[in-house]
Amino acid sequence: MNIDIRFDFQRRERIGLLEAIWGADKSVDQLKRLSEEVLSKKEVVFITRITSEKANCLLERYQDARFYQDAKCLIIGQNFKKFITTKKVGIVAGGSSDLAVTLEAKLALEIHGVSCKSFIDVGVAGLHRLMSQLEEINKYDVLIVCAGMEGALATVVGGLLPQPIIAVPISVGYGVGKNGETALNSMLSSCSPGIAVMNIDNGYGAAMAALRLLRVFPRKFFISYRFLVDFLSIN
Amino acid sequence: MNIDIRFDFQRRERIGLLEAIWGADKSVDQLKRLSEEVLSKKEVVFITRITSEKANCLLERYQDARFYQDAKCLIIGQNFKKFITTKKVGIVAGGSSDLAVTLEAKLALEIHGVSCKSFIDVGVAGLHRLMSQLEEINKYDVLIVCAGMEGALATVVGGLLPQPIIAVPISVGYGVGKNGETALNSMLSSCSPGIAVMNIDNGYGAAMAALRLLRVFPRKFFISYRFLVDFLSIN
Amino acid sequence: MNIDIRFDFQRRERIGLLEAIWGADKSVDQLKRLSEEVLSKKEVVFITRITSEKANCLLERYQDARFYQDAKCLIIGQNFKKFITTKKVGIVAGGSSDLAVTLEAKLALEIHGVSCKSFIDVGVAGLHRLMSQLEEINKYDVLIVCAGMEGALATVVGGLLPQPIIAVPISVGYGVGKNGETALNSMLSSCSPGIAVMNIDNGYGAAMAALRLLRVFPRKFFISYRFLVDFLSIN
Amino acid sequence: MNIDIRFDFQRRERIGLLEAIWGADKSVDQLKRLSEEVLSKKEVVFITRITSEKANCLLERYQDARFYQDAKCLIIGQNFKKFITTKKVGIVAGGSSDLAVTLEAKLALEIHGVSCKSFIDVGVAGLHRLMSQLEEINKYDVLIVCAGMEGALATVVGGLLPQPIIAVPISVGYGVGKNGETALNSMLSSCSPGIAVMNIDNGYGAAMAALRLLRVFPRKFFISYRFLVDFLSIN
Amino acid sequence: MNIDIRFDFQRRERIGLLEAIWGADKSVDQLKRLSEEVLSKKEVVFITRITSEKANCLLERYQDARFYQDAKCLIIGQNFKKFITTKKVGIVAGGSSDLAVTLEAKLALEIHGVSCKSFIDVGVAGLHRLMSQLEEINKYDVLIVCAGMEGALATVVGGLLPQPIIAVPISVGYGVGKNGETALNSMLSSCSPGIAVMNIDNGYGAAMAALRLLRVFPRKFFISYRFLVDFLSIN
Amino acid sequence: MNIDIRFDFQRRERIGLLEAIWGADKSVDQLKRLSEEVLSKKEVVFITRITSEKANCLLERYQDARFYQDAKCLIIGQNFKKFITTKKVGIVAGGSSDLAVTLEAKLALEIHGVSCKSFIDVGVAGLHRLMSQLEEINKYDVLIVCAGMEGALATVVGGLLPQPIIAVPISVGYGVGKNGETALNSMLSSCSPGIAVMNIDNGYGAAMAALRLLRVFPRKFFISYRFLVDFLSIN
Amino acid sequence: MNIDIRFDFQRRERIGLLEAIWGADKSVDQLKRLSEEVLSKKEVVFITRITSEKANCLLERYQDARFYQDAKCLIIGQNFKKFITTKKVGIVAGGSSDLAVTLEAKLALEIHGVSCKSFIDVGVAGLHRLMSQLEEINKYDVLIVCAGMEGALATVVGGLLPQPIIAVPISVGYGVGKNGETALNSMLSSCSPGIAVMNIDNGYGAAMAALRLLRVFPRKFFISYRFLVDFLSIN
Amino acid sequence: MNIDIRFDFQRRERIGLLEAIWGADKSVDQLKRLSEEVLSKKEVVFITRITSEKANCLLERYQDARFYQDAKCLIIGQNFKKFITTKKVGIVAGGSSDLAVTLEAKLALEIHGVSCKSFIDVGVAGLHRLMSQLEEINKYDVLIVCAGMEGALATVVGGLLPQPIIAVPISVGYGVGKNGETALNSMLSSCSPGIAVMNIDNGYGAAMAALRLLRVFPRKFFISYRFLVDFLSIN
Repeated sequence: MNIDIRFDFQRRERIGLLEAIWGADKSVDQLKRLSEEVLSKKEVVFITRITSEKANCLLERYQDARFYQDAKCLIIGQNFKKFITTKKVGIVAGGSSDLAVTLEAKLALEIHGVSCKSFIDVGVAGLHRLMSQLEEINKYDVLIVCAGMEGALATVVGGLLPQPIIAVPISVGYGVGKNGETALNSMLSSCSPGIAVMNIDNGYGAAMAALRLLRVFPRKFFISYRFLVDFLSIN
Repeated sequence: MNIDIRFDFQRRERIGLLEAIWGADKSVDQLKRLSEEVLSKKEVVFITRITSEKANCLLERYQDARFYQDAKCLIIGQNFKKFITTKKVGIVAGGSSDLAVTLEAKLALEIHGVSCKSFIDVGVAGLHRLMSQLEEINKYDVLIVCAGMEGALATVVGGLLPQPIIAVPISVGYGVGKNGETALNSMLSSCSPGIAVMNIDNGYGAAMAALRLLRVFPRKFFISYRFLVDFLSIN
Repeated sequence: MNIDIRFDFQRRERIGLLEAIWGADKSVDQLKRLSEEVLSKKEVVFITRITSEKANCLLERYQDARFYQDAKCLIIGQNFKKFITTKKVGIVAGGSSDLAVTLEAKLALEIHGVSCKSFIDVGVAGLHRLMSQLEEINKYDVLIVCAGMEGALATVVGGLLPQPIIAVPISVGYGVGKNGETALNSMLSSCSPGIAVMNIDNGYGAAMAALRLLRVFPRKFFISYRFLVDFLSIN
Repeated sequence: MNIDIRFDFQRRERIGLLEAIWGADKSVDQLKRLSEEVLSKKEVVFITRITSEKANCLLERYQDARFYQDAKCLIIGQNFKKFITTKKVGIVAGGSSDLAVTLEAKLALEIHGVSCKSFIDVGVAGLHRLMSQLEEINKYDVLIVCAGMEGALATVVGGLLPQPIIAVPISVGYGVGKNGETALNSMLSSCSPGIAVMNIDNGYGAAMAALRLLRVFPRKFFISYRFLVDFLSIN
Repeated sequence: MNIDIRFDFQRRERIGLLEAIWGADKSVDQLKRLSEEVLSKKEVVFITRITSEKANCLLERYQDARFYQDAKCLIIGQNFKKFITTKKVGIVAGGSSDLAVTLEAKLALEIHGVSCKSFIDVGVAGLHRLMSQLEEINKYDVLIVCAGMEGALATVVGGLLPQPIIAVPISVGYGVGKNGETALNSMLSSCSPGIAVMNIDNGYGAAMAALRLLRVFPRKFFISYRFLVDFLSIN
Repeated sequence: MNIDIRFDFQRRERIGLLEAIWGADKSVDQLKRLSEEVLSKKEVVFITRITSEKANCLLERYQDARFYQDAKCLIIGQNFKKFITTKKVGIVAGGSSDLAVTLEAKLALEIHGVSCKSFIDVGVAGLHRLMSQLEEINKYDVLIVCAGMEGALATVVGGLLPQPIIAVPISVGYGVGKNGETALNSMLSSCSPGIAVMNIDNGYGAAMAALRLLRVFPRKFFISYRFLVDFLSIN
Repeated sequence: MNIDIRFDFQRRERIGLLEAIWGADKSVDQLKRLSEEVLSKKEVVFITRITSEKANCLLERYQDARFYQDAKCLIIGQNFKKFITTKKVGIVAGGSSDLAVTLEAKLALEIHGVSCKSFIDVGVAGLHRLMSQLEEINKYDVLIVCAGMEGALATVVGGLLPQPIIAVPISVGYGVGKNGETALNSMLSSCSPGIAVMNIDNGYGAAMAALRLLRVFPRKFFISYRFLVDFLSIN
Repeated sequence: MNIDIRFDFQRRERIGLLEAIWGADKSVDQLKRLSEEVLSKKEVVFITRITSEKANCLLERYQDARFYQDAKCLIIGQNFKKFITTKKVGIVAGGSSDLAVTLEAKLALEIHGVSCKSFIDVGVAGLHRLMSQLEEINKYDVLIVCAGMEGALATVVGGLLPQPIIAVPISVGYGVGKNGETALNSMLSSCSPGIAVMNIDNGYGAAMAALRLLRVFPRKFFISYRFLVDFLSIN
């Protein structure tokens, strides 16, 4: 039962984004097979949600693998096709429990060549913590706001600053806030206008959305698309 | 099919609170019958969630009835047993859409003789609106915070001021915030400590909780309770 | 019971966005009072989710009011502080049932001076409809994708084009897809990376997110924020 | 406390389908007892959702047992009553995380004598992967489409090809897509017409539905049914 | 604000199915515009979920329009491209409350030229009603089973007969069964193997699934697909 | 931090039912302390949902303790106050996965002196299994019906037999049926009239409901209740 | 499109219960057709959840029809086959808002010849109201407990009295208690043992459950069942 | 990747409450780093939801650390700034399974210098247990009521006593009551007026709410707030 795996290597060409490997549901064997394939194309391997156990197995095998324990991410090789941009992304987070998601977003941006900085523990229960860093935060071009619990941080930041805001609900809390759905719904219902929301804990996705926003990638149109149009309208 | 109705007239004696009549599910006939019974005991009638149509029917019949359209409440007669307290309640609300619930709470407090003031449209999307009234709000002894959408107002107020905070989620919004559950869960998950929460749109309940907090009512112990204890432990 | 309403007139100064009036929960009286206040500040009135009945009442009173029935929006006056930008927004929609939300977003963008175009009925059940317009869609700088039912349109567009994508789930459908939650969750779970999602039916919010992305508004830092920082850190 | 177990051995006679043993909730002891009973009737044992640990216990005992680790299935003995059909089933899957369910369906079909082929990693985020295999997929008579996340694959395939489509939502993802409900609801709400849906992760069920569709089993009417009719109408 | 509507006229060519017009969310004006466009292509108009009021407006305008009140469907013109098949579909329904959905499925099949028969009120609370018709039901090649409440009918039929079974949950009931979700989940969790399920109340969809199963439509492969494959693999 | 525990020893006197100890959330220490207290009152200890590990600790300490592994129940001592009744309870279950709950109900009945018999694996997917035992089942005075998945067994039994039926949904299944809620809602929505439902997996509760139904316990009225009435109406 | 309707006239013979007609989803025409059929068999018509409008249409036509507005029930003709029993049912209800369901249960019992009495407004917020009637309530053989809001009444009654308790959650309340699900889940989770629960607002069902409990109906075994057994085991 | 953590040390100054450390999601390393920082400010460390394993690591390092296993809390150092109040808090709990949350609340109050007492196992299934302690409970100034299952205890206590009531739903139970949501919704929907509710299992939060109610903390207004007001209104 040998199953072929079709990695989306054209994604970078098509929409400028690297495909990450979701490590949570995969065995070490599957991760190794996928890594081999990616490395054989001279691409960089970026694995998210990987446990220490699985990471150690890969660290043994690949000398240039780096494991970021707090981010639960592992990177093998280097990304030689980084974007060149002076735009910077600020990542604002409500508490230290949001750390893993925050760092996943940070790594995903840095591997594409985008500079970014984290602002941790600026939750709104003590508003002075946010306020004392507001001027610094305002210097960043795109803001990723990570928050668990009731997710009010996105509303407060969105009401004070004019940047694009990508909100990431975090599955931190207990009771009704346990799995991040309260933060998610809170961000979607925010009374601050124009806040765009990602799936719960989706740090990597927030980074990808930020990359789209920075518009560093040329918007060429693939010739194959044009042919498709012609043929589809004939039939 | 004549059904007796047993109104809880002893509630005021027992826990100091007037029983309100929930008008939403009752017909004009039922409301009239209940009002008659309450008035015959020399008590004040306080009906919540009553439509203009039903209210008008009662206004025709009772000369001293007053209908508060924005609050959807109707009061017949006067409450001669008001409490005497100098403590005041502040009602803080996120938007003008929260008006009906806010006013229901206000009327319920005033009918018990407690002075209170509303602070409307101090939502956190524009933080300056709240900040500019913060010193005034701080003068009140108990705070009722009403908010729909993502309900972040409770978190921000609770993080800035030390008073008891009774949060009331409002069923205002659309999509995931439509029925008030997002505001409810947000308030329950608040990262500001010690915020106590009422059911969605429960302005009357918030007023009753505030009355309990003001502790204006003497905590006597009913002799019947004591007898019950004795007899139950014999058996 | 005269209640003051505090409109957030500083929002435009602070984050560059006009505050819209949510018409669904407000009476004609409330809408008139709010409109008066906005017009007295020489600002434009933008009301969303307004019924024909309420709209007609306002049309009678304000000569320069315009009602857009399909968009369920009403505008009074003109926005003299439009942004100057050559960037354009494309609005892609799955079916004609998504029309109202699509047009709400379009009007909200145009009132801020941003040019945009709608691409309706390009749902993925017949992929050729999308494909035949893909080259044209690719010319737009930011894409708003509106879809009800299973919301797969966002995934397909996001997988083909590199622009920032703001997905708006629509409450169109029946059974499990009735209220738009399936489209919402589908967009949040999209396997295409970097898709940012708005609340169900939130066309206005999507427009505001697009405005933030276009970054036409200067990111100045308010002096009051700076003072706040100093004082908060002293205490 | 000896409990009799009544296996449905007549199912094959009645509706042409083999009864599988759901291994997830059963102990090794229960699995052994059930296997004994099935084997004593000269039938083949087909256990789904079985862990490696449980499987090893059974492998030790039965020489002709085969364990398919990726499919989490174990088979003991051979099915001598396979159907004879030239019809083939294609199994299309969005990602390698859908592998277990895909293989469960494949085994369940093959054990009944139906030929089938898997098409893995043809997810719609990179549409070219599906398109490049579309002609090949079109050669199959019934299509089983497995997808997690937002499950858009079923909509795209259903919009392009005319075959019967059995969609299986997979419990792969995180946040709102975590347990497969988003994929399920998405498939049920598909804008492509005529897509029939199975329970989350129900690969075996999809295979059984495919067998029903292939109509390889003669539709005789049991005499007992007819008697039942007579007697029931007498009473 | 003139919006073009792109009807999927190629659907019949591509997958053999007629596109229905979902009447619930559309105004009479929109229905007329869509009907005009469909009729101009010499196609038959098939509108589902249409109220008597809207239907009457269309009946006035189109002489050959027929309104089926119990089915809430309206048909204009005739379908000259009906399939030729001797296969028949049986529609089994639990109660008379399921009538509208049952008839929608029946009409959708008949308009494509497929013969079918309804078996109403064969609910499992009185099993004799089903049993007395079982032999007759068994003569049909594909079975559509409609049931509200707890939806047990699908399980019982699926356990007795070997045909392909397409289950349609109906939004009939009250309390936890009110909106059809209990019937839906019950059908998805059925202990009878191989039951495929449609969205709640989706009679039209069940008919389309049945059409796919009958495989009356030739599975040609569109040349445009092939070109797409080539070009996509070049890029 | 020594915490007193108040066991409800009067329950047997009051309503005729023994209080069981819910073993799932309690530590071995807590179970021992509770057992000591119960035994010191010459009562029988009945612990439900206890793991083998915890049970072994108690088996070591109490010589007359009996552990029923399949039922996950442990009993210490004997119930000398059993009821004398010739009425019998039949427990009907859909599959062998429902065994634990079935046996918990059986033990709970037997410890009160009520005779009962289990009918396992009579699920409705193969109706003959139920039918072949129907005459035997009909001999029992009260029926407890346990079923997971879609829970249709309760509907079928309730439609055929006139006894009181207590339905227990079981948390067996996967996907939408995983946690027993589908079986629960299905039983509550049953089209067979007069089926009363217990909480998911509540075998003990079903036994208690059966005991109430058998009305073996004399309905005396406690003198303390009467006094309470007098005193409460004085105050 | 003439559809036959198969009423379950054998239900009375089989399980002793009359089939009610659920009036909510049926048109006046359908109700008339069903009534005709029932009356032609010399049976009594019992329609639940019928509006005044529909009821008036039937009152005009049938002279011996009686409409019970508060119960939303209509009865035509008389039930000559009433049971003879001295057992009585007590119906205990939390508030006057539960009236309709309470009366539906009462009528359904009385039409079968069972005597019963309602105890309204004995909610637990003022425990004295329940206590003062407890001795009277204790005289009844089976208790139906109706309660909305948090449904605590079932727990309190079940903890004090030993009778069989059939709990009916009522869809009265607002916010999280709005649709009766809180009362339902509360009753299912009751810490008082042996409380059996019906679907939300299911007064008729509670009456049917009470009838089963009273065991007034002889438990004969239908000969057709026995034949079925024989034949099914042959095949 | 060195991340700064900003502890909210000003919370005590601002709103009088100590910030607790939520131990559930933090590693031993993170707990140590946070403890160091707190201790360096001469503050007391209060960690909630900490496992025995983590606690032991901290006990080894800090001599004056105390671990309260039943409460799952760890305290390091002493709180020298306790309040001086003669007011007392009573904590009433339904069962011994609610112990951990009850004790968390107790410790959180005591560390602030507030005296309190627990009343365990006074659940309403056996009302005499509550009644026999009611007079004692009535002596306390604020009542925290903890209950799992259906949470009816809050309603009964709230109906009998006039104190402020803070209800804490507990995640104890099974089936529909498993995760505490039934108790939560039951408390929010209580028919006893004025009951304020905390998040599920939030013992610490209940203690903080009680502290706010006791109003032992002076309500000074921070000068920074006043400046903020001035500056915000200038801009």
